[in-house]
Amino acid sequence: MPARIKVGVIGLGRMGNVHARLLATQIAGASLYAVAESDEQARTRAAAEMSIERIFADPFDLLALPELEAVIVTTPTSTHAELVIAAAHAGKAIFCEKPLALTIEENRTVLAAVARAGVALQVGFMRRFDAGYQRAKQLIAGGSIGYPVTFKSISRDPFCPPRNYLDPAKSGGLILDMSIHDFDLSRWLVGSEVERVTAEGTTLVCHDLASVGDIDNALVNMRFASGALGNVEASRNAFYGYDIRTEVLGSEGAVMIGAHRHTPVVLFTRTGAQHDVMPYLMERFGDAYRGQLQHFIDCLQQGQAPSPDGQEALAALKIGIAATRAYQSGQPVMLSDLEEASL
Amino acid sequence: MPARIKVGVIGLGRMGNVHARLLATQIAGASLYAVAESDEQARTRAAAEMSIERIFADPFDLLALPELEAVIVTTPTSTHAELVIAAAHAGKAIFCEKPLALTIEENRTVLAAVARAGVALQVGFMRRFDAGYQRAKQLIAGGSIGYPVTFKSISRDPFCPPRNYLDPAKSGGLILDMSIHDFDLSRWLVGSEVERVTAEGTTLVCHDLASVGDIDNALVNMRFASGALGNVEASRNAFYGYDIRTEVLGSEGAVMIGAHRHTPVVLFTRTGAQHDVMPYLMERFGDAYRGQLQHFIDCLQQGQAPSPDGQEALAALKIGIAATRAYQSGQPVMLSDLEEASL
Amino acid sequence: MPARIKVGVIGLGRMGNVHARLLATQIAGASLYAVAESDEQARTRAAAEMSIERIFADPFDLLALPELEAVIVTTPTSTHAELVIAAAHAGKAIFCEKPLALTIEENRTVLAAVARAGVALQVGFMRRFDAGYQRAKQLIAGGSIGYPVTFKSISRDPFCPPRNYLDPAKSGGLILDMSIHDFDLSRWLVGSEVERVTAEGTTLVCHDLASVGDIDNALVNMRFASGALGNVEASRNAFYGYDIRTEVLGSEGAVMIGAHRHTPVVLFTRTGAQHDVMPYLMERFGDAYRGQLQHFIDCLQQGQAPSPDGQEALAALKIGIAATRAYQSGQPVMLSDLEEASL
Amino acid sequence: MPARIKVGVIGLGRMGNVHARLLATQIAGASLYAVAESDEQARTRAAAEMSIERIFADPFDLLALPELEAVIVTTPTSTHAELVIAAAHAGKAIFCEKPLALTIEENRTVLAAVARAGVALQVGFMRRFDAGYQRAKQLIAGGSIGYPVTFKSISRDPFCPPRNYLDPAKSGGLILDMSIHDFDLSRWLVGSEVERVTAEGTTLVCHDLASVGDIDNALVNMRFASGALGNVEASRNAFYGYDIRTEVLGSEGAVMIGAHRHTPVVLFTRTGAQHDVMPYLMERFGDAYRGQLQHFIDCLQQGQAPSPDGQEALAALKIGIAATRAYQSGQPVMLSDLEEASL
Repeated sequence: MPARIKVGVIGLGRMGNVHARLLATQIAGASLYAVAESDEQARTRAAAEMSIERIFADPFDLLALPELEAVIVTTPTSTHAELVIAAAHAGKAIFCEKPLALTIEENRTVLAAVARAGVALQVGFMRRFDAGYQRAKQLIAGGSIGYPVTFKSISRDPFCPPRNYLDPAKSGGLILDMSIHDFDLSRWLVGSEVERVTAEGTTLVCHDLASVGDIDNALVNMRFASGALGNVEASRNAFYGYDIRTEVLGSEGAVMIGAHRHTPVVLFTRTGAQHDVMPYLMERFGDAYRGQLQHFIDCLQQGQAPSPDGQEALAALKIGIAATRAYQSGQPVMLSDLEEASL
Repeated sequence: MPARIKVGVIGLGRMGNVHARLLATQIAGASLYAVAESDEQARTRAAAEMSIERIFADPFDLLALPELEAVIVTTPTSTHAELVIAAAHAGKAIFCEKPLALTIEENRTVLAAVARAGVALQVGFMRRFDAGYQRAKQLIAGGSIGYPVTFKSISRDPFCPPRNYLDPAKSGGLILDMSIHDFDLSRWLVGSEVERVTAEGTTLVCHDLASVGDIDNALVNMRFASGALGNVEASRNAFYGYDIRTEVLGSEGAVMIGAHRHTPVVLFTRTGAQHDVMPYLMERFGDAYRGQLQHFIDCLQQGQAPSPDGQEALAALKIGIAATRAYQSGQPVMLSDLEEASL
Repeated sequence: MPARIKVGVIGLGRMGNVHARLLATQIAGASLYAVAESDEQARTRAAAEMSIERIFADPFDLLALPELEAVIVTTPTSTHAELVIAAAHAGKAIFCEKPLALTIEENRTVLAAVARAGVALQVGFMRRFDAGYQRAKQLIAGGSIGYPVTFKSISRDPFCPPRNYLDPAKSGGLILDMSIHDFDLSRWLVGSEVERVTAEGTTLVCHDLASVGDIDNALVNMRFASGALGNVEASRNAFYGYDIRTEVLGSEGAVMIGAHRHTPVVLFTRTGAQHDVMPYLMERFGDAYRGQLQHFIDCLQQGQAPSPDGQEALAALKIGIAATRAYQSGQPVMLSDLEEASL
Repeated sequence: MPARIKVGVIGLGRMGNVHARLLATQIAGASLYAVAESDEQARTRAAAEMSIERIFADPFDLLALPELEAVIVTTPTSTHAELVIAAAHAGKAIFCEKPLALTIEENRTVLAAVARAGVALQVGFMRRFDAGYQRAKQLIAGGSIGYPVTFKSISRDPFCPPRNYLDPAKSGGLILDMSIHDFDLSRWLVGSEVERVTAEGTTLVCHDLASVGDIDNALVNMRFASGALGNVEASRNAFYGYDIRTEVLGSEGAVMIGAHRHTPVVLFTRTGAQHDVMPYLMERFGDAYRGQLQHFIDCLQQGQAPSPDGQEALAALKIGIAATRAYQSGQPVMLSDLEEASL
């Protein structure tokens, strides 16, 4: 059995905690070696709950550990680029939460640094590791639905974002923040690149978002190079539950991924039948989070390049930026124009 | 196009109305030629709503019409035998609601009269004509589940029977009245005869039933000649809706028939997801009622024997009587013992 | 009981036959009094199967019957306007299949003629009469989902249209032909008018359509006056079955309408679970067709204006024309611009 | 934070491995301190995969560790009694896989030893810790379905047992081995004790079972003291998947627990819709296994008695023995007679 890979987690917010606990307990071939977190309370809590010896306030102290082989970056999006570049310089393999960056330029700078350092980089599009999406990919790749014709995807969160999360300069705004998962899935499942997008957005429920210039609902129409079409919906106000659905209609069939029920119970009374709904992220994608981290470690153990990588992050980011501009301008946006503009 | 078969309906209760309206509107190759109904109000209502010229108070007046070719008997169960025998003597083809009779002896007397007269007889096991049950039969016959191993069936009514329906001497009691459909399905789908039954019954909800010596819930265990096993449940208190389900587990797979949803709508709110439930008989089996009547007419038009016939009614009745005795005695009942007792 | 309304059916194609048979058998308060059909074979078949006395080759002969009170127009779309106008001149109440016309001008001409004649006009948006859509309307109107935020609708046909149906000059093209139902539903369920549309279209499967300048798949994005958003999908290539789904996400919940299963049977084998899918139109909307015709007759019997009327047809048509132009131009189309252009 | 409880696992078969890995990774407040396993290969594998320092061949060596506070017994059923008694003598808290024993006498002997030692004992009825069954219990306890009237439960395994598992003297035979979970659930959900059982059994598919005197399918009918009825099915031949379903029909509604789908994907093709089925135990009850072990540790940490305990194991065992005798004799068995016989 090969030695366990020593992994450090930078950032112990909600997702950082998820990754740290997975590493500590469920990921084979890796060990949670160190964490870095600027918030003192969060550090104290981690020390109490996870028995980690090396807890740093400054991520650069963590990166300075020579024996550390890999890092997981789960800090706020605006800090991703700087930390990934520093980790690359330090020669660490990198797993970074999505999105890698909020601008094309920044994403390219990161990719260049990673390429120069020759380190592995995986980006956190965990849906690709969900058993449902994996099965869908398999079915499509195996020809079960012919060739893809229409891609539809819905991502609905069960609550308006908390106030401290509202700044679209930090989150990228609704479309970049939420739909980037769907944009990544669209390329992966359709097997073609998006060429043109149009978008509509509105703010009808989460009124705090309006005050910071963000929206709570969006619908993005897409055209792929293959001639396939797509539509992606994002919503902040599915108060009934976490509703994530994707379907691909092909020339010979269709595949639909999505689950509304959480626990396998239905109550029947005089007023009809009732069941619960998927509450949130970890209930739906807990296994996918584990799967993507295991994939990252397995690739490192076997000397293979993990996926999805920084190029895939860039491709999804471009769709997200184009869709955001399309919403803002009310006009179609060609991804090729975006390309030129950013050079 | 052959001439329409002239059909008379005897009894205009709930089921008689269903059959009469089907004949008047949706059954090809037949015409609603006459009705007989002892209740004056019911006759007046039928005259107003269905534009039938020949409406009799006495069923024997209807049977005396020489041009009438077929009759549908939907009177109370206790009168079935006498009317079917009279119709056979009059040379009419006969469709009779289930059960044909409440005792084996009576069922045999009816079969003898029908055989002597050489008339067609079909009994109203309409579930056999439901698209779901037909598909299940097809799948089983085609070997999709291997050979049958376990038969399970549930029949739940959404309300306690009305007071005027309570007399078990007239209905045969819960097991005969409700489960006879499941007993018929069991023979048809398993393809083997029931040899032994045990049963438990209780009266916990519809307390009026206790006062007349009937029960509101029963569970019947069955052993088939093939070695297959079965369980049939009847309940009067599924106040959430009409719940009819059957499944057959085979040596290579299983087939499950059943539908809880009625309209194709789901409401999602903060308290979860809700949908409606099948309300009652006609919503679930409306098409099957039409199908069985069309089958009866088609057979008459083509000179073929309709099915299920009186022998099948007898076979289901035997299981029902055995199960009722098993419940009453708390002991297993062999159907072969029943056979001897009744000779 | 009031006298039955004498109804004539003009056009005995697929839908004409549906309406004629419904009138002959299942619609209370009406009688199938006459039919008109230019095709001789179709007339012969109708005579054989439906026992109608008055069968005309020329619809104007039918309209000339003074005792005829209402007509159902189910001829090809390009003839709707002329026949509805003639029926209005003849003083008949009119039920016309959708769409009433293929241009705004023509639709307006028809409405003017109908208004002058003071006759009733109902247009065939039968989905409004489906139990599922009716329940959804009720739930939304009752506040169960708060106010509407996003409207999504999918209409997928299970086969490419036959060659004789291909001319988009006659059908209006994919978006007008198929999505007009969804556009009508969008206004009805959202309770607000569409202000702007964008659209993508493609021809990837039904290659015959490309040769006549039509498409086989389209995605239309919509913005409503209320700020709500919408997306409507049309596809000709859902070879797995007839797939009609609609959902409305509101500020407090969501309602989803749609049914994939047809018969209530699931087969479980070593390769998984399998069930059938809704085959086509009549299996899904047979009851809605009956319901809309009964509504038309009930309104005539009670002297009320039937709905949806010609104004509703015009409103749905406008969205369809705008969406078609948006697809053709690749640009957003404001419905207000359309308005001006057509004056 | 209290010190972690040192736990030893006795037996590293399939279930032992599950428990050991859970302890090593996912159970808060406990540590995997030692294991005992007679098979050398299994010990070597455990050493390689789990980094446990104390690995014994003899369970009594493990029990001799004075600092060990709790043990998990997952050896073959026939050794449970001896090991639990030894663990009790050694003063360890005990979690034992179901069943605790295969005879009433043995179960009582174990309970007496545990009581004398005053140690905690929990028995592995993990379904009680499944989110679905917990929700059902809650709904029933909260009155959502009125009072229980009928209990139905199905347990179907996806393959015939392997040859080395065939001896019914070791497993207790089909009914005891599989249905004991359902018997435990029946008491827990109905809230009443079983008084009488009848049973049918057959061997139609797993022919190896016949050669050792066991059966592959059984149906057990039950009567509860409250007057409620029950039916429990066990099958070895659900080759389509692991099929575990329970429902309770009450006086005011019903609750149904069960899940056929595994991954949230449906494939639609010209032949219909297809989806996968729950493969086996860990996919369905992985979380429940974790939950029951966490409950055991939490109770130890908080000084509370864990549940279900040995009395509950005895109650379920009695139903299982009565049902086995009922099957063997073809006669109803009263649980009160069983009681006397065993004294």
